[in-house]
Amino acid sequence: MSASSENKVETLRWRKGRLELIDQRVLPARFEYLSCSSAAEVAEAIRTMAVRGAPAIGCAAAFGVALEAKRREHQTQAAFDAAMEAAFKTLAASRPTAVNLFWALERMRAVLAGSDDPGSAAVRLSDAAVALMQSDIETNRAIGRSGAALVADGARILTHCNTGSLATAGHGTALGVVRSARDAGKRVSVIASETRPCLQGARLTVWELMQERIPVTLITDNMAGHLMRTGRVDLVIVGADRIAANGDVANKVGTYTLAVLAERHRLPFYVAAPLSTIDIAAADGSAIPIEERGAAEVTGYGDAQWAPQGVAVANPAFDVTPAELVSGLFTEKGVVGRPDSAKIRALFSA
Amino acid sequence: MSASSENKVETLRWRKGRLELIDQRVLPARFEYLSCSSAAEVAEAIRTMAVRGAPAIGCAAAFGVALEAKRREHQTQAAFDAAMEAAFKTLAASRPTAVNLFWALERMRAVLAGSDDPGSAAVRLSDAAVALMQSDIETNRAIGRSGAALVADGARILTHCNTGSLATAGHGTALGVVRSARDAGKRVSVIASETRPCLQGARLTVWELMQERIPVTLITDNMAGHLMRTGRVDLVIVGADRIAANGDVANKVGTYTLAVLAERHRLPFYVAAPLSTIDIAAADGSAIPIEERGAAEVTGYGDAQWAPQGVAVANPAFDVTPAELVSGLFTEKGVVGRPDSAKIRALFSA
Repeated sequence: MSASSENKVETLRWRKGRLELIDQRVLPARFEYLSCSSAAEVAEAIRTMAVRGAPAIGCAAAFGVALEAKRREHQTQAAFDAAMEAAFKTLAASRPTAVNLFWALERMRAVLAGSDDPGSAAVRLSDAAVALMQSDIETNRAIGRSGAALVADGARILTHCNTGSLATAGHGTALGVVRSARDAGKRVSVIASETRPCLQGARLTVWELMQERIPVTLITDNMAGHLMRTGRVDLVIVGADRIAANGDVANKVGTYTLAVLAERHRLPFYVAAPLSTIDIAAADGSAIPIEERGAAEVTGYGDAQWAPQGVAVANPAFDVTPAELVSGLFTEKGVVGRPDSAKIRALFSA
Repeated sequence: MSASSENKVETLRWRKGRLELIDQRVLPARFEYLSCSSAAEVAEAIRTMAVRGAPAIGCAAAFGVALEAKRREHQTQAAFDAAMEAAFKTLAASRPTAVNLFWALERMRAVLAGSDDPGSAAVRLSDAAVALMQSDIETNRAIGRSGAALVADGARILTHCNTGSLATAGHGTALGVVRSARDAGKRVSVIASETRPCLQGARLTVWELMQERIPVTLITDNMAGHLMRTGRVDLVIVGADRIAANGDVANKVGTYTLAVLAERHRLPFYVAAPLSTIDIAAADGSAIPIEERGAAEVTGYGDAQWAPQGVAVANPAFDVTPAELVSGLFTEKGVVGRPDSAKIRALFSA
């Protein structure tokens, strides 16, 4: 792997048997690592969004399993098994929508099942988590190459939430396509929607792009329509938290609106995601659970609370974009134009 | 006029020769009146959004003219004329999009032109401003009656920004329709989009509705699509800052997106506004100037600044919704279904 720009940002790192995570709740005001040494600590980091982004959540969960095995490696087999079962349960309950979490846990469960005793399980699980993290970066580079081929020189790309190095083990999904296009010599610029309520666009996407000197313009979420109508957007690229078997896409709330706007303005609307984001068991978007988060995220941001106390709030963290609005899916196995059930099935049989 | 709930909120009041304005920048955390005694102070209050909402801006500007006349009433005619000319200029430059501002200034200019001397002009201008404020409330009640007839019992109404008592002299436009429907015995509830960047929905609309115990649910702007897709919205009602002769509507940024979403979901999209919001001189939406505001509104809110310093920002305060997306216009002269040039012309000839 070449020494490339995205390696400046190590979203997750495995140091001396601990998982260190960039605490994304306090970026960009502060750049701090949060250290986790148990599955419960990792689950808490996922739940509170210290680490977020579907692929990064998957990697973190894998390390959560590895950490738990390590701290239990000298226990009896029975105690170890019970503790590991509890760890899987805690991690699986941390966030409901991003399927990469469950995908990673399944992978780790298979590694655990193939281990002879707690000591060897701890070693194998730790190796598996590291391998999963490394393979995520390779996957993202392949997604980036797929997508970059469809990005024209000079393209003005609207994106939502954060899908960069911070959302993955490195490079990113939708933002990885931007990076790959730039690396291929294309002059690209980004319009980043701030992504209320947690402001991942304003805080994280802007921060990543400014670090790499990729031109970025920040807008509030409700400005995207105006920018499209006045001819200032060429295409939309977003990530995904779970893609159903028919191509319906669950992603950060606001994504569906961008897809509807893109259709009206005849702009391409692309989704960049690894195959681990596809949930073949979900027939369509209606089978995807949508996380509802707490009211304080909507009534303000952090310590700043501006709405009257006690107001009723809706806070769906994700929405579902029907496949019919998706121009193409960028995956590590190439581009799937106008995704549907047959094309998605084919991705897994190839 | 009956003693009704909206009179609790006196957005503008004329006390002892001063204009007092509820300072809407600090609501709901603090309820304070700002006192203005010159045109320049009123213009500053408009520019900084201490007072906002197209009809309220019009009323405030009228009082700005009256205040300036009063403080100049003992000057020579020549000095008075020059000062008044400067006052009109200052007030006209305060905000560019809402046409009610220019409409009110024209009315005041006609009153001034019909006055004999500074002393009588001061009295007549003050009377005219008070009359304009009172007539705004009557106009809003008439708009409310028009619109309420089209609101079903049990309706879940999505609205944007603040179009209530705070945006007008009283009762409100889009929120006035909600009030009128409630007063007519209908059980209505409101979904309020927070309206970034200045959060008029989260701060002002929620505050007004909670005061009157009208059920309200707060969402971030990017959640409207998800709520429509999951069947939780029955219709959309918004206000307007300027309506072109063909029915195109300039309103708070984000309005256009709601109109596009409403069309996709076959939900009615209504605009509630007085005739003073219609700019017959603007052939269509492209003739309406869209105010671009400062970056700090987008990079954070107030003292809370969350985006990296120095990021480029777009901050259009308004957008234009093409007439084709407007199901109906609620005016003091009744409902204009599917507005077009002929129907709008007819409003002014009747």
